[in-house]
Amino acid sequence: MDTSDVETILTQVAAGDLEPADAARLLARLPFSDLGHARIDHHRSLRQGMPEAVYGPGKAPREVAEIVTELLASGTGPVIVTRADEAQITAVRAVAERSGTELSVTGHESSAAVVLRPAAVLEARVVVITAGTADGPVADECVAVLHAMGYQPTVLRDRGVAGIHRLIGDLDIVLDAEATVVIAGMEGALASVIGGIAPGPVIAVPTSVGYGAALEGVTALLAMMASCAAGVTVVGIDNGFGAGMAVVRALGSRS
Amino acid sequence: MDTSDVETILTQVAAGDLEPADAARLLARLPFSDLGHARIDHHRSLRQGMPEAVYGPGKAPREVAEIVTELLASGTGPVIVTRADEAQITAVRAVAERSGTELSVTGHESSAAVVLRPAAVLEARVVVITAGTADGPVADECVAVLHAMGYQPTVLRDRGVAGIHRLIGDLDIVLDAEATVVIAGMEGALASVIGGIAPGPVIAVPTSVGYGAALEGVTALLAMMASCAAGVTVVGIDNGFGAGMAVVRALGSRS
Amino acid sequence: MDTSDVETILTQVAAGDLEPADAARLLARLPFSDLGHARIDHHRSLRQGMPEAVYGPGKAPREVAEIVTELLASGTGPVIVTRADEAQITAVRAVAERSGTELSVTGHESSAAVVLRPAAVLEARVVVITAGTADGPVADECVAVLHAMGYQPTVLRDRGVAGIHRLIGDLDIVLDAEATVVIAGMEGALASVIGGIAPGPVIAVPTSVGYGAALEGVTALLAMMASCAAGVTVVGIDNGFGAGMAVVRALGSRS
Amino acid sequence: MDTSDVETILTQVAAGDLEPADAARLLARLPFSDLGHARIDHHRSLRQGMPEAVYGPGKAPREVAEIVTELLASGTGPVIVTRADEAQITAVRAVAERSGTELSVTGHESSAAVVLRPAAVLEARVVVITAGTADGPVADECVAVLHAMGYQPTVLRDRGVAGIHRLIGDLDIVLDAEATVVIAGMEGALASVIGGIAPGPVIAVPTSVGYGAALEGVTALLAMMASCAAGVTVVGIDNGFGAGMAVVRALGSRS
Amino acid sequence: MDTSDVETILTQVAAGDLEPADAARLLARLPFSDLGHARIDHHRSLRQGMPEAVYGPGKAPREVAEIVTELLASGTGPVIVTRADEAQITAVRAVAERSGTELSVTGHESSAAVVLRPAAVLEARVVVITAGTADGPVADECVAVLHAMGYQPTVLRDRGVAGIHRLIGDLDIVLDAEATVVIAGMEGALASVIGGIAPGPVIAVPTSVGYGAALEGVTALLAMMASCAAGVTVVGIDNGFGAGMAVVRALGSRS
Amino acid sequence: MDTSDVETILTQVAAGDLEPADAARLLARLPFSDLGHARIDHHRSLRQGMPEAVYGPGKAPREVAEIVTELLASGTGPVIVTRADEAQITAVRAVAERSGTELSVTGHESSAAVVLRPAAVLEARVVVITAGTADGPVADECVAVLHAMGYQPTVLRDRGVAGIHRLIGDLDIVLDAEATVVIAGMEGALASVIGGIAPGPVIAVPTSVGYGAALEGVTALLAMMASCAAGVTVVGIDNGFGAGMAVVRALGSRS
Amino acid sequence: MDTSDVETILTQVAAGDLEPADAARLLARLPFSDLGHARIDHHRSLRQGMPEAVYGPGKAPREVAEIVTELLASGTGPVIVTRADEAQITAVRAVAERSGTELSVTGHESSAAVVLRPAAVLEARVVVITAGTADGPVADECVAVLHAMGYQPTVLRDRGVAGIHRLIGDLDIVLDAEATVVIAGMEGALASVIGGIAPGPVIAVPTSVGYGAALEGVTALLAMMASCAAGVTVVGIDNGFGAGMAVVRALGSRS
Amino acid sequence: MDTSDVETILTQVAAGDLEPADAARLLARLPFSDLGHARIDHHRSLRQGMPEAVYGPGKAPREVAEIVTELLASGTGPVIVTRADEAQITAVRAVAERSGTELSVTGHESSAAVVLRPAAVLEARVVVITAGTADGPVADECVAVLHAMGYQPTVLRDRGVAGIHRLIGDLDIVLDAEATVVIAGMEGALASVIGGIAPGPVIAVPTSVGYGAALEGVTALLAMMASCAAGVTVVGIDNGFGAGMAVVRALGSRS
Repeated sequence: MDTSDVETILTQVAAGDLEPADAARLLARLPFSDLGHARIDHHRSLRQGMPEAVYGPGKAPREVAEIVTELLASGTGPVIVTRADEAQITAVRAVAERSGTELSVTGHESSAAVVLRPAAVLEARVVVITAGTADGPVADECVAVLHAMGYQPTVLRDRGVAGIHRLIGDLDIVLDAEATVVIAGMEGALASVIGGIAPGPVIAVPTSVGYGAALEGVTALLAMMASCAAGVTVVGIDNGFGAGMAVVRALGSRS
Repeated sequence: MDTSDVETILTQVAAGDLEPADAARLLARLPFSDLGHARIDHHRSLRQGMPEAVYGPGKAPREVAEIVTELLASGTGPVIVTRADEAQITAVRAVAERSGTELSVTGHESSAAVVLRPAAVLEARVVVITAGTADGPVADECVAVLHAMGYQPTVLRDRGVAGIHRLIGDLDIVLDAEATVVIAGMEGALASVIGGIAPGPVIAVPTSVGYGAALEGVTALLAMMASCAAGVTVVGIDNGFGAGMAVVRALGSRS
Repeated sequence: MDTSDVETILTQVAAGDLEPADAARLLARLPFSDLGHARIDHHRSLRQGMPEAVYGPGKAPREVAEIVTELLASGTGPVIVTRADEAQITAVRAVAERSGTELSVTGHESSAAVVLRPAAVLEARVVVITAGTADGPVADECVAVLHAMGYQPTVLRDRGVAGIHRLIGDLDIVLDAEATVVIAGMEGALASVIGGIAPGPVIAVPTSVGYGAALEGVTALLAMMASCAAGVTVVGIDNGFGAGMAVVRALGSRS
Repeated sequence: MDTSDVETILTQVAAGDLEPADAARLLARLPFSDLGHARIDHHRSLRQGMPEAVYGPGKAPREVAEIVTELLASGTGPVIVTRADEAQITAVRAVAERSGTELSVTGHESSAAVVLRPAAVLEARVVVITAGTADGPVADECVAVLHAMGYQPTVLRDRGVAGIHRLIGDLDIVLDAEATVVIAGMEGALASVIGGIAPGPVIAVPTSVGYGAALEGVTALLAMMASCAAGVTVVGIDNGFGAGMAVVRALGSRS
Repeated sequence: MDTSDVETILTQVAAGDLEPADAARLLARLPFSDLGHARIDHHRSLRQGMPEAVYGPGKAPREVAEIVTELLASGTGPVIVTRADEAQITAVRAVAERSGTELSVTGHESSAAVVLRPAAVLEARVVVITAGTADGPVADECVAVLHAMGYQPTVLRDRGVAGIHRLIGDLDIVLDAEATVVIAGMEGALASVIGGIAPGPVIAVPTSVGYGAALEGVTALLAMMASCAAGVTVVGIDNGFGAGMAVVRALGSRS
Repeated sequence: MDTSDVETILTQVAAGDLEPADAARLLARLPFSDLGHARIDHHRSLRQGMPEAVYGPGKAPREVAEIVTELLASGTGPVIVTRADEAQITAVRAVAERSGTELSVTGHESSAAVVLRPAAVLEARVVVITAGTADGPVADECVAVLHAMGYQPTVLRDRGVAGIHRLIGDLDIVLDAEATVVIAGMEGALASVIGGIAPGPVIAVPTSVGYGAALEGVTALLAMMASCAAGVTVVGIDNGFGAGMAVVRALGSRS
Repeated sequence: MDTSDVETILTQVAAGDLEPADAARLLARLPFSDLGHARIDHHRSLRQGMPEAVYGPGKAPREVAEIVTELLASGTGPVIVTRADEAQITAVRAVAERSGTELSVTGHESSAAVVLRPAAVLEARVVVITAGTADGPVADECVAVLHAMGYQPTVLRDRGVAGIHRLIGDLDIVLDAEATVVIAGMEGALASVIGGIAPGPVIAVPTSVGYGAALEGVTALLAMMASCAAGVTVVGIDNGFGAGMAVVRALGSRS
Repeated sequence: MDTSDVETILTQVAAGDLEPADAARLLARLPFSDLGHARIDHHRSLRQGMPEAVYGPGKAPREVAEIVTELLASGTGPVIVTRADEAQITAVRAVAERSGTELSVTGHESSAAVVLRPAAVLEARVVVITAGTADGPVADECVAVLHAMGYQPTVLRDRGVAGIHRLIGDLDIVLDAEATVVIAGMEGALASVIGGIAPGPVIAVPTSVGYGAALEGVTALLAMMASCAAGVTVVGIDNGFGAGMAVVRALGSRS
């Protein structure tokens, strides 16, 4: 909650412009809208400079549409729906058409990221790098979040460490990045290698790619946490959205 | 390896100033010193803007002293020895005295961080916040790394979520931070709460504090990875050093 | 087994009204009915003041109907069928109609709670609070159990800790609760926050909501067990039924 | 934070008796004392009716003494130090003597519970039951917390399920309990058996007793979570303190 | 390999009735038939007094039929096919009809036990006891194996420990058993309770019944391994076949 | 509880020789002695034909002595103390001397099995076989239990499967065994091999021998549970006592 | 990257035949082709003497076809597609027909290995041995890789250790093998037994065959890692491809 | 067991030179010596071409001495004692002096490898490479085994992937290796990188180096098993001995 809001309210109370009981109600209800099934945090966008985001799975298309409508109505920043299925995309598309908002859809029909009202383009150099082609969907989600916030990341795919020389041609890009997202399943070794090269924040995303001993991403997660490269940080398994958000946190004020 | 170095060497070869065989040897040996027991990466400091760091455990005091001597001799940036024991501290102190370098020691005698040649003071607002008093040693390691790099972090201790109102007086500090490190054991819930408030990068450090179901830090690690707060990133259990490094990566160019 | 029953039987034996051999048989068979596929514990309701409950999965609709018929015939308290599928609901509905008992169904068709013969309404203030909208089905099961026993819980949805200020408006409700059920997946941090505020019993339910590092509820389970808030207790993953029963145990004598 | 406090302060602001800026500071700092190394939550005692508790491990004897001094000075309720070692006990004893407060010490010298200023005796019938003699220390910690709050629990030791008939003589006690704590290691089966008998809240504590497949308490923890007895709740491994606190939460208003 | 066979062969060699090279070949090939896709161990039946058993999953119906044909042709004891699907049952039924052998099928069509040529009826008193109705299929598999070997087990269903008094009527049966199989999922506590009562071998079978913290049988497995009842032994999760075989091993010579 | 006891008591009540209230007390208290710190189950020996056993760890020498004194006084069968340390052995030795009972001690001073009043020698052929020399202490505990009950097991040491031919000379012994205990750490493969050869009950004991991937016995435990040899059963890690007890259960009536 | 290539390029630069900037580009791009969605490492075949391999899952048939086309065009060695589904097989078949290359398909339609341009036949004696018939598909994948490289392995199926004598007839084959692959699920004991017999490299493949305590291959994996047979090495669960590649690495220069 | 031995014995029987009963005894006892506490497999050295090895931990110095004496007396190949402590080294040194055998000791006094009668020097190019200096002891054990067998490995230390360029100078060595052992803790990424470069067998050894998320070697183990580099094989955690043995298996016939 923004401190200045609190002070404004207290000042109004002091001036007799606001009853104490009303002030208490105001303080409690101010920062969100209650849709019954969901509470929308309108202040987070202001407070943290991050997009309004709706996580699709488990929500009815109608619920997603209601939340998106509320977000478009009450804010001005980007709105993103993650892991949306086809019915949810259709519902959001209808909302967008009604309100004259453009939208972009990235990913498979069964699990797509939908972006509305993207931010103005920023200059920051962000690199998203994957170990294998199968890590693509996670990278797509990360890129969609970054696009929503105005970033134009360079995406390097299929750079796994088993062919370490494939990275040589990309060294300049990695060395020049202001933030790097490393997406890898199996043993996740790419995070350590990039972590030893890239100068800025390196955010590692373990993916559930691989089978058997990859333990659906747990092996990569543990390996990235135990990485010998200092200062590498990790987000949850397959969490491309979180990685994009971490980039926004890190570069937010640099645009 | 810095691309310009490669080009310089290739240009010298082209100019006949360097034999191809010598160039190959040069390319291979350039970026580190080989002490036999350790290979020192002098270029990482330049490449990544991070301090030269020596991990103490498992190294003989003499080996630590040799590495520190080499680092002081060939570089100009800060040098840090982590988790040093008493004998290692003594050995490093001797090196410092011989070379007229000041050093500071933080933490217990059995596991201290030793900083030599710290960087000039920076202005960035960094906050380090712990859930309980028992998380102190991890915070100390993190703070030592930050001091080495010139940061003067604000440290908030004992702000666990079981008394969530204890955070209210610190809201301004957290809302104003350019980077926040959250250190918590047990269930690690503080990372989610701070992650919902702080605007910049939030780096969570699970600690091995707690017993039984805390599983020596694994519970906090998993909880932080699964955090409902978007964009929070995580480093390894008790890895205060890594968290400090992650801050350096994130804020490196903002000083 | 009720002690007074034992004494009654022994007194009858002493009075010569009951043969020892018959008494032994009586002692053994008294407290349940044997349907072949299931043994119904009629005394639990008396002994523990809890509803007669039937766990649906793995039972044939006909078996469920037989058990419900037996429960309605031999007892007077509420009866609840949990995680019932459509065929089971139909079978129970037929039983209810034949016996002129009303029934209510909560939840999805594939996994619903069916309540028959609910108890009279009680005054106790119970709060059920969820971290996200996806925790809804678990809350529904918990609420159905509470309704069966006569409680009218206040349900607060979507109060996850990433927007901690969303809780402020509910503080009075939580501070006033005689018992609180906290339902959360992902990292389960809400249990610690509520545990630090609510005065009465706080029962935490980890849910399988979340993906990757949430480990299908194990992360939330461990986090809740390791909670820094004193006196919080935990039931099994997704076990809304158990949480409701724990409330009944805690408040049973307060109505 | 107590709502009435907030309203009082707002009313004072409305009356002109308090400047808005001062009110903001007051709101933030009111509910705790800051000792530098620890923040003491004086309001929790009022808010939740639970004792002020200090967890010993990892704190210097001087720190423990400071916290206890503060707690005795600013509150009126019971104070408890858990898992205190010999030096901490000595430090607390000195504080007690200076302030003329009596104290009692339960458990081993290396890990004892110290109780100061216990509450007046309550009438509630609480039962603490252990599976084996080795579960004793956990029971002792639980009993110390209960004593601090005024409860006089009945303690039944060595009632493991391998000799289920040993429970028969205790049936009346268990059936009559208003709250029951079940403490068991190994496979933790006692919780299920007692959960099927006891009418009120049943709080299960897994212990690290057992070896090999007992997995230092994880087996008992999982077994208790998966218990077939409805409404049994669980606290962390060896967490006798938490179990005692859970009883206080459940029976707090019944005294 | 039966020692007497070896001696017979060596004696024949000594007598000149067998060439050394032929003897070597004989020694190697004697105890099984090679069907290409499977090697049938005809001697196990003789060596261990256990039925010839075929594990269905992953085998083509034709392969199962071939193995059963071979087993019927070369042996005289019972033959059992476990976890057979409908196509495999049909294939085996055809074999049985061609050879004039009767067969019995137990369980679901998708996972049944097929028994051919069962042994003569034995007198031994075997008890199979389940904690809940959902453990039924595992009990069925166990009973089928026992029937194949001539045992007529008493089956007690739905005797979970949450209603411990339901066991009282069965005490005589359990106390009189020569071998007892305990089948339980969730927390598996029934094994400890029965293990404290039954005098003979007690074989515990953890089942995958339960959800969440039951971890698909791992919780029951660990709990049974850590059981406080001495001498209880455990077989794999859902392994009703193994439990039946263990009974055969224990009682084989008692018939 | 022995049914005949119950009937006797009820008959006395019927005959007016016993008051109902006294009968109830009698029923409850009969089968054990209460030493305060422990409840001794005198009937288990009669009920299950197993030795009275005291688990040493965590008990004061004085407590062990009291329990042993009680066991010697009120029973006639063998008494065994497991994992006794030096002080406990001394205390038990004093008890033995006072009562004129001989005792034998097996194992290390820090963890020995003490046997008093062993049973008469039995003829049954029991084999205890270990994979490596490091499994010796577990075998010793198992053998001590067997000796207490009158068995004279054949012990085969260091028969690990990496040298499978070392087993050939022992084939006759294994084929002739009435019960076989297989003790193995590391990967526990010996249980599968012996399970394929031995005809009677095969009880596998995983040991914590091995390092790294042996996971302190969990690997062997899982491997033995998943064994491809039918009817092999498993006891807990390092539980030589339990294995011995399982043999007693299996062979009890064959002596 | 082949050193001679580097030297050649440097020599060309020294001779003025190549501009330094061009050389840098050449060095970076030389060893692979970039298809956008995948980077093909043409040098690995030369560098490591292993076949070009394409992992099917997650790739569109069109993508697989493009990669195979590129591999056939630019190399001369064998090409293998693993775990190909029907659509991918069809796409590759079309490529093969267009280019006049023969191809062989091994395994199920849903998961087959496709081999194109196999190497000339080699003489090395390789043995692939499985514990059960269910391990067949993993063996098939391994054999396909070996065939691609020119090996003609002897395949021994269904040699599990529960019938250890079934191995006797194969002893000569195993003792004579230059490399042995052991494929086993459940408890994986076969690896230890073969590891104690076979003289050359023994590569163990844990499979996900088995249920319950087999933990989808983790039990076999751990057991094989902890094997008491010295020098046995392990690849990932179900990784028949990796095992074949390990044989190629071991025998590559012996052909 | 060597087939020729079997044939020899059978031929003697056929010739009447050997009684069948004696032959049976001979077959069984031939390949090992029984010291009571250990069975020595003299044939393994012949059968597998590997050194006679004694694992120190858990054996009395006297036992180690007896085994070494037996091995020196009856064989001619190298003998190695692993993880020997000081007392065991002293005992072995005495044996060596008595028999005039030279011995070499590698490693710490508390855990050393002792080699006696090393094999003649071989030419094979073996490389042992570690990720960090802390992996040294595992490398030392591996090197001692290799020396015993006559190999003179090149050891590259401290080549972790965080400074991937440190590997460049070693590329020729790795590309030229006939076998490579990669030893790494933490995330074990080095195995994947080397696996993508080295042409021959690559044997990865996870070490328990690292803390927290490194899970005492389990993270590296899983990461190496899941490695994206084809044909890399893995041995147990810290198992330098096993890795050396695997090299012996792979290169045995190439000397």
